Amino acid sequence: MKQSQLFYKTMKESPKDAKAVSHKLLCRAGYVNQLMAGVYTYLPLGFRVLKKIEEIIVRNMEAEPINGQEILMPSLTPKENWQKTGRWENFDALFKLRGFGEKDYGLAPTHEEVISPLVKNAVFSYKDLPFYLFQIQNKFRNEARAKSGILRTREFMMKDLYSFHADEEDLDKYYDKMIDRYLKIFKEVGIRKDGVEKITYPTLASGSTFSKYSHEFQTVTTSGEDIIYICQKCQYAINKEIKEETNVCPHCDKKTEFKEEKAVEVGNIFKLGAKFSVPFDLKFRDKEGKEQPVLMGCYGIGLGRLMGAIVEVNNDEKGIIWPDSVAPFQVHLIQLENSKKVRDKAEKVYEKLFEMRIEVLYDDRENATVGEKFAEADLIGIPLRIIVSERTLKSRSIEIKRRDEEKSKLVKIHNLETVFK
Amino acid sequence: MKQSQLFYKTMKESPKDAKAVSHKLLCRAGYVNQLMAGVYTYLPLGFRVLKKIEEIIVRNMEAEPINGQEILMPSLTPKENWQKTGRWENFDALFKLRGFGEKDYGLAPTHEEVISPLVKNAVFSYKDLPFYLFQIQNKFRNEARAKSGILRTREFMMKDLYSFHADEEDLDKYYDKMIDRYLKIFKEVGIRKDGVEKITYPTLASGSTFSKYSHEFQTVTTSGEDIIYICQKCQYAINKEIKEETNVCPHCDKKTEFKEEKAVEVGNIFKLGAKFSVPFDLKFRDKEGKEQPVLMGCYGIGLGRLMGAIVEVNNDEKGIIWPDSVAPFQVHLIQLENSKKVRDKAEKVYEKLFEMRIEVLYDDRENATVGEKFAEADLIGIPLRIIVSERTLKSRSIEIKRRDEEKSKLVKIHNLETVFK
Repeated sequence: MKQSQLFYKTMKESPKDAKAVSHKLLCRAGYVNQLMAGVYTYLPLGFRVLKKIEEIIVRNMEAEPINGQEILMPSLTPKENWQKTGRWENFDALFKLRGFGEKDYGLAPTHEEVISPLVKNAVFSYKDLPFYLFQIQNKFRNEARAKSGILRTREFMMKDLYSFHADEEDLDKYYDKMIDRYLKIFKEVGIRKDGVEKITYPTLASGSTFSKYSHEFQTVTTSGEDIIYICQKCQYAINKEIKEETNVCPHCDKKTEFKEEKAVEVGNIFKLGAKFSVPFDLKFRDKEGKEQPVLMGCYGIGLGRLMGAIVEVNNDEKGIIWPDSVAPFQVHLIQLENSKKVRDKAEKVYEKLFEMRIEVLYDDRENATVGEKFAEADLIGIPLRIIVSERTLKSRSIEIKRRDEEKSKLVKIHNLETVFK
Repeated sequence: MKQSQLFYKTMKESPKDAKAVSHKLLCRAGYVNQLMAGVYTYLPLGFRVLKKIEEIIVRNMEAEPINGQEILMPSLTPKENWQKTGRWENFDALFKLRGFGEKDYGLAPTHEEVISPLVKNAVFSYKDLPFYLFQIQNKFRNEARAKSGILRTREFMMKDLYSFHADEEDLDKYYDKMIDRYLKIFKEVGIRKDGVEKITYPTLASGSTFSKYSHEFQTVTTSGEDIIYICQKCQYAINKEIKEETNVCPHCDKKTEFKEEKAVEVGNIFKLGAKFSVPFDLKFRDKEGKEQPVLMGCYGIGLGRLMGAIVEVNNDEKGIIWPDSVAPFQVHLIQLENSKKVRDKAEKVYEKLFEMRIEVLYDDRENATVGEKFAEADLIGIPLRIIVSERTLKSRSIEIKRRDEEKSKLVKIHNLETVFK
């Protein structure tokens, strides 16, 4: 894509109320635009990142051993379903609205009240279990305070998967597989690291009558609103509520030191057990022909929040440093001067990269200074920068520099393909 | 995908209130599930079709000469923006809701009130124009009567593109390109035909103060709620409102016969002119340095309704007949008997097709009769059926039949690849 055609607008100043670094950078670099408190538009650059994140999540949810099947549930949901679970009155963040015929709707902040009655018609016997359904859908929450840019919003894209099981052992096994899968996803998008500092931690949180714990996935950042305590022996964490009850790590069972960190929750998984199958009469006949409630699990990842967390973890004083996996483009090609020679060569490199199916943002602007071009490229944060200039063309070369490295190198134009091997 | 694992449930009976054939078939075949009047869940089969439609639309919106850039705008929108255009009070179908702090929101049925202020920060000079932004997003409409299944719903996935121009000539040119592009899309998804009966027609409808006409795209079907009048000379249509004013075809300017048909609107394009740029003060400086309002066009396609229209046009008494372009799978592989020999061979064919990257639904069920398997395959409507049975294996063959043809043929298993050339 040519930058002269791209719909975006970088800003020198951050939004006045912005404190989180992801909020500042994503607004300044033209990835998102705030419509009002807690409600954002994803601009072309931001939408590309969101799609990359979506593709990674969908691929991981569909693959073995997760085997999720994608569906799409509505946002408008009938009051009656929320009354059945007692959440019409008890779910503070539920937006309520009224349509023609005095009909009341909830604007779904989560979908247990839709999926439980939905699957009822397809489950009769233990032979119909287990199965796994997921969706990527807008969720709505009437938050008293929305803040930190896309980390905490009133409307947000979320992946939620629901699993359905005949017994607790099967649910437990699947739940454990999901923990591994979540860590794999967070590694792939660049917020879970291999070193001592994992950055993103599975974090024990309170469960329900059905299971003692649920798991949050918390990414350490000073912009986080949560506090977590990382066990220095097993590198699991516990949240504040659990910390107040114990000095032993409930994951590794060892007496341990806990390291306190601010963090943002990027995912959350929960054994629901029969909590929703009972009110919706979702049951099956077991091998002995006896009726049993279906056991459920739910597994969420907020896509916008994840995008924010990726920026929280991957940036420097100049701007964003996108991991390759989620970058809006792989290459930022910069035509440094406007001479015919430089323009022609840059155009040729652009076409060559296009043929190689590499996603390129090509800064072809003739009205931007060299300084502006570099500053914007650093702010936007595309992983690989390629410069075509009078200087590089003297040796029939281009200059290549990774956003996360200081050093650049000259590569002969006819060797362009070797860069991507 | 193995059918034994697929989350779906076919029904012998149509929903009681279902009149439209698409409503009956999509519910019976397990593509969609009604949560309440006018609100549906897309089940795995239906979701796959929706994604195919989405991919076709996105590809066509991004390609030359449309050059749309995809974004994602929110559904929650501030009351103030709707007040600016007078639509807070005048837009009957606008869902209104209230959040914390007595804050009123509109649940967007369309996005002019979001995109006009959004682009204001990026447009200064005629050099910044034209550009084109689109999104695929849920829309909400507080319909007094929702009916005909997914043809008319309260919540629906929609593509809306907005174009921004410096002058009327530029808007007119782009608008005409969009008419061609829409017809191309409708042809690709199987509802616009080459013959005398085009099935889907560009239809003149009333415009605004800015332009005499807007264009609807109407698909002829007895389930349609609209009436259109097709000019027998130029094969354009006019809607009821226009028909009452004229006996001359306003498209080809000829005295003509009009053929009256029931139809459903699958797309709609409109020259907005300065209608939204004026209230949001969206202007630019022209070549003479004079301030002018930006001129806008908007271009919509409802994805769910399009899916319904495709089924309206492509079915027979046995079920759906998906066009290849939007089918949930390309091949329905049926293992007719449960002997080890048949199962093993069917499994091998399945693996081979998987390697060839062909999307296959593999009916591996051992508890369904031959009759049930055939009836369900016809109902679900996948374009190509491949049967592995005791009989076909006698000649080391598989039986191949297109859903839209009567005749089947035997193909040697080792020649499987030739089927897809």
